[in-house]
Amino acid sequence: MRVTIVGVGLIGGSIGLALRAARSSDYEVVGWDTDAAALAGALERGAIDRAAQGAAAAAAAADLVVVATPVDLMPQTFAALAGAVPAHAVVTDAGSAKVAVVEAGEAHWGSRFVGGHPMAGSERHGIEAADERLFDDAWWIMTPTSTTSSTSYALVADLVTATGARPVAVDPLVHDDLVARLSHLPQITASALVEVAVASGDGDTLLGLAAGGFRDVTRIAASSPDLWVAIIRSNARAVLEALEGLRGRLAGAGELIAEGRWDELRAWLDRSRRARTELFAKRAFSGEPVGLSLMIPDRPGVLAQVTTAAGELGVNIEDLRIVHSTEGGRGRLELVVAGSEGAELLVGTLMGLGYRVARTEIN
Amino acid sequence: MRVTIVGVGLIGGSIGLALRAARSSDYEVVGWDTDAAALAGALERGAIDRAAQGAAAAAAAADLVVVATPVDLMPQTFAALAGAVPAHAVVTDAGSAKVAVVEAGEAHWGSRFVGGHPMAGSERHGIEAADERLFDDAWWIMTPTSTTSSTSYALVADLVTATGARPVAVDPLVHDDLVARLSHLPQITASALVEVAVASGDGDTLLGLAAGGFRDVTRIAASSPDLWVAIIRSNARAVLEALEGLRGRLAGAGELIAEGRWDELRAWLDRSRRARTELFAKRAFSGEPVGLSLMIPDRPGVLAQVTTAAGELGVNIEDLRIVHSTEGGRGRLELVVAGSEGAELLVGTLMGLGYRVARTEIN
Repeated sequence: MRVTIVGVGLIGGSIGLALRAARSSDYEVVGWDTDAAALAGALERGAIDRAAQGAAAAAAAADLVVVATPVDLMPQTFAALAGAVPAHAVVTDAGSAKVAVVEAGEAHWGSRFVGGHPMAGSERHGIEAADERLFDDAWWIMTPTSTTSSTSYALVADLVTATGARPVAVDPLVHDDLVARLSHLPQITASALVEVAVASGDGDTLLGLAAGGFRDVTRIAASSPDLWVAIIRSNARAVLEALEGLRGRLAGAGELIAEGRWDELRAWLDRSRRARTELFAKRAFSGEPVGLSLMIPDRPGVLAQVTTAAGELGVNIEDLRIVHSTEGGRGRLELVVAGSEGAELLVGTLMGLGYRVARTEIN
Repeated sequence: MRVTIVGVGLIGGSIGLALRAARSSDYEVVGWDTDAAALAGALERGAIDRAAQGAAAAAAAADLVVVATPVDLMPQTFAALAGAVPAHAVVTDAGSAKVAVVEAGEAHWGSRFVGGHPMAGSERHGIEAADERLFDDAWWIMTPTSTTSSTSYALVADLVTATGARPVAVDPLVHDDLVARLSHLPQITASALVEVAVASGDGDTLLGLAAGGFRDVTRIAASSPDLWVAIIRSNARAVLEALEGLRGRLAGAGELIAEGRWDELRAWLDRSRRARTELFAKRAFSGEPVGLSLMIPDRPGVLAQVTTAAGELGVNIEDLRIVHSTEGGRGRLELVVAGSEGAELLVGTLMGLGYRVARTEIN
């Protein structure tokens, strides 16, 4: 399997290192980066087997192209690659916002494009910070759509699994709302809280007295502004919606305080406290792997429906295989999911969607 | 020195334990709490030497009364103690908001009341969580006013030092604005961020994907709603101001995003990043202790002016002694501050305020 990684920074470099570490796989990795020092570093660190001479040359012999540039550069990177990617090859990306990227990817490659977003990172940047274990046990969101073919999805899911991450399928729109609320809004808010804290000219040296809570809340405000402008820009619609939501809730809290409605304030704080506790209790199901098998029509969209249903239930698909029927037009989808509780939930949902699902033995 | 602690929960109990651990001191500690189980627990843990039969009985023989009840109960606790506190005794408190508490304290005890706020805490509550090392190296904000007498201040500062904390003097109004911005606003914001995150009914199980940033930012949302309502209520004015400030800044960020003003967004994120870095770099001055000596008129207000100036410069007063002149009406204030850099800044400020300051040898 010939993999081309375009953009060999923290994420691209770590993908290369993880693939090399996964000895069972036989990925041959070609790299390209507009930054010559990064490209040389990736080669030196062994993140790539070979450095290409340009984007087109890098893509030309690939079975799978992974675009891991900054998210705002993806549309132009796609355009530069478009003519060179072989007709059989699959393209995926690692951008932190998905709707616009998936739209651009599908415009070029249709069913052979699969959006992705590894939920792993570091405060550091660049190939120097790349780490073969960056994705170990991390979620890797994949965003198949009704256009995505099941073979493309399976190819990318295999790569994700080889890096040590756990693939989970989510609709691109849901993904963008989710990261806006969980990541982009907190980022902007942390910066705003710092600004409010230092805004008063009075006794600013006293701010050194700030206790642990303030440090925790504002830690992410120390992240790279360049990186964050690119991310926010790529997800502006969802970020604005989340911002509006936060401002409304702060206004609501202010009203309770101004009007001395302390019981309601207490109830509000309590709801949030319980929600947060549940949030982190509600991790994905785990347990012994359970095999599921279902017949599916062999056409785009079906795979996305199944994997997205699993993702929304929080059920982790540990393995996925499509066995094409000799009759044509149909195939058997074989899944392995974690834990019988999650498996049961998924079976119920899939049956509700009209699939007949059987449990299978796992060898 | 007979100390009475009213309210022997986390803070009151930890003060008692810290005083007992400070063997060089000879504090005799009497405790009182409306919660009989807490009082028994404090006695059992050795946080107090003796349990009183009631608030008035607890205060009757005290040289120093420390009120460590929840901050919203302080005015009524003060009223209950007022008739019983001996005419020579000094009263201090450990409440997290100061303007209203200081006003109430001074109404009862005038120059013999000194507001305080130890900048230490724990996610846990009650006497079970009390810890003799809770205040080790923590800042303990003291809020003397023009009413506070220097002997009262010195008595409380000694107690603070005996617990292992570092006293720093701040104006009550500045204190309240400061904690509103550094603590109360982040608390409300964390709760609002959780609410925004869980607001969408769509794919809530996916929230388990939340990465480290969101966990950090919202960690404090898991704190006790009862405690926080009491704190916010005691500092409502400053909290509302801080909330208004935050909403304005979020609106500003939203405008930049909606209008695609990315360079300005980058500059804004960068300013906040640098501000946060400076914030935590700008710790109090440190270094070899430096002795300073200045003549002061022996009347209320002077001490507050000197200690507040030091606090606003971020200069830590490690020791403070008042040598009353035999002539009467004047005294010599002897300070020990940390580091020559801080000492120089303080000398400059004090000279600007009209004091003549000399450096002294430290034995």
